[in-house]
Amino acid sequence: MLPFSRVTIIGLGLIGSSIARGVRAFMPTVRVTGHDASAEVRETARRIDLCDDITDTPGASVIDADLVILCVPPGAMGAAAAAIATDLPADAILSEVASCQASVIAAIRQSLPHVTLVPAHPVAGTENSGPEAGFATLFKGRWCILTPPEGTDPAAVARMNEFWKRLGSNVETMDPEHHDLVLAVTSHLPHLIAYTIVGTASDLESVTQSEVIKYSAGGFRDFTRIAASDPTMWRDVFLANKDAVLEMLQRFSEDISRLQRAIRWGDGEELFNHFTKTRAIRRSIIEQGQDDAAPDFGRHHA
Amino acid sequence: MLPFSRVTIIGLGLIGSSIARGVRAFMPTVRVTGHDASAEVRETARRIDLCDDITDTPGASVIDADLVILCVPPGAMGAAAAAIATDLPADAILSEVASCQASVIAAIRQSLPHVTLVPAHPVAGTENSGPEAGFATLFKGRWCILTPPEGTDPAAVARMNEFWKRLGSNVETMDPEHHDLVLAVTSHLPHLIAYTIVGTASDLESVTQSEVIKYSAGGFRDFTRIAASDPTMWRDVFLANKDAVLEMLQRFSEDISRLQRAIRWGDGEELFNHFTKTRAIRRSIIEQGQDDAAPDFGRHHA
Repeated sequence: MLPFSRVTIIGLGLIGSSIARGVRAFMPTVRVTGHDASAEVRETARRIDLCDDITDTPGASVIDADLVILCVPPGAMGAAAAAIATDLPADAILSEVASCQASVIAAIRQSLPHVTLVPAHPVAGTENSGPEAGFATLFKGRWCILTPPEGTDPAAVARMNEFWKRLGSNVETMDPEHHDLVLAVTSHLPHLIAYTIVGTASDLESVTQSEVIKYSAGGFRDFTRIAASDPTMWRDVFLANKDAVLEMLQRFSEDISRLQRAIRWGDGEELFNHFTKTRAIRRSIIEQGQDDAAPDFGRHHA
Repeated sequence: MLPFSRVTIIGLGLIGSSIARGVRAFMPTVRVTGHDASAEVRETARRIDLCDDITDTPGASVIDADLVILCVPPGAMGAAAAAIATDLPADAILSEVASCQASVIAAIRQSLPHVTLVPAHPVAGTENSGPEAGFATLFKGRWCILTPPEGTDPAAVARMNEFWKRLGSNVETMDPEHHDLVLAVTSHLPHLIAYTIVGTASDLESVTQSEVIKYSAGGFRDFTRIAASDPTMWRDVFLANKDAVLEMLQRFSEDISRLQRAIRWGDGEELFNHFTKTRAIRRSIIEQGQDDAAPDFGRHHA
């Protein structure tokens, strides 16, 4: 049996529009309603027939929903919750997809203190944004992490679990604080570093920007992909998950200082040992189906 | 007309074996001879019929060559040059593919002070190593940088230019010192950072290695690819291009400190502005054909 029959998605960017498409592809009898704060996005969503209905106000979108998923940037979650507070049915489950949970849950609780909240963060995405960037299989084979706050009704958690399985995800449950620590290292720190190095490379005087672009296949281009991600969302993530990000960044800085010292002093053994260790992680990621086994991410070479 | 008729490749790893395959595919009348210091690699190369001939000694491989390309790690270039010094024909052109040129050229010059040397560094690769990892189209559409030392015969440079064009590359000429600076930022710094963050993530106590692997699709997995590159080669690159790498690393550290401070003090505007700027670089890389336009590097999503 389907876990929900009337799903509302608020925020129709990459993730929201992928959920809408996934529901239509894998749960075709479910009614999907959408809303986005931007009139332009709503117009696009209507044009590409993303949902059964697109409403002009957030309140109208939730009025008879049994599941409402907030897919707005972390910093906009509190306001999105406030905007549906009057119209959200008492028995509806509320969910959201933020990459940092503790502060987002607190923000939602301010206007909806008694709501049944089952956050579900799909660890998936691309560097593209907007309603046209989404696709139904985005979540297939990827993990989705549920972070129900303590005391959440287990039946509600089970329904969310079933929902994400039907979208193709593997589902895991974690407490919000641990989720934020895990994501700080697997997602937030990599994004911060990628944003940094792309900035560093474009600010040089000795090497032109055109040279950086031409010779980017030496490794640099890999970093430019995630440094092309949505700036609003990422600003919000770093502000909302500040403590965990600063902790991971501190460790990274210590580790890079150690390698920097090895380079300065010509300690080849230290470098070699470090570089050998990191190969094993790649192998595990591929073995567990979390990346393409083809060389170079399977990029086209002919 | 073909620029060479008897090409010798010393070092049959990813790059050497890709050149061998490329010559056979795109210049089929050219005779290709190969040698590798490892008996196991020579055996594999014979089994997969990589070259017309595989010799057991470096001297025998060069005896009547008109082009010899050294494809060994940077730290082994000097010894490879010494090993062919007696047998290298006086009119042969010597080339090598190192990712750092100034120190490698100096090392080769020690045993071959008068050789016609036209280094050619193809900015291409995958995370895989060994004779079976190569493929004929690896260099297609990628840049190859020639770094002839001052005073090199222009006719020799022109022949190398033609050779790499026939392998599918765009060819550019640069002086060795500038090459090393460009590669420090487009290739060496990205690899160092990737190696670092993968190490940082696998050393945490609060987050398990299994969690890092499971949730790597949040961004981390992108870094694991280049951190799986050949440890010997990369040790040599960092030792050989020390000054340029340390300079780029210093700039990177300053830039990450600035973003770290913005996170600590909640300066969302600073973060947003930085994250907006870096998007443009990605667009240019795709426009210039240096990466796949498909989202997520074109990774398979179904």
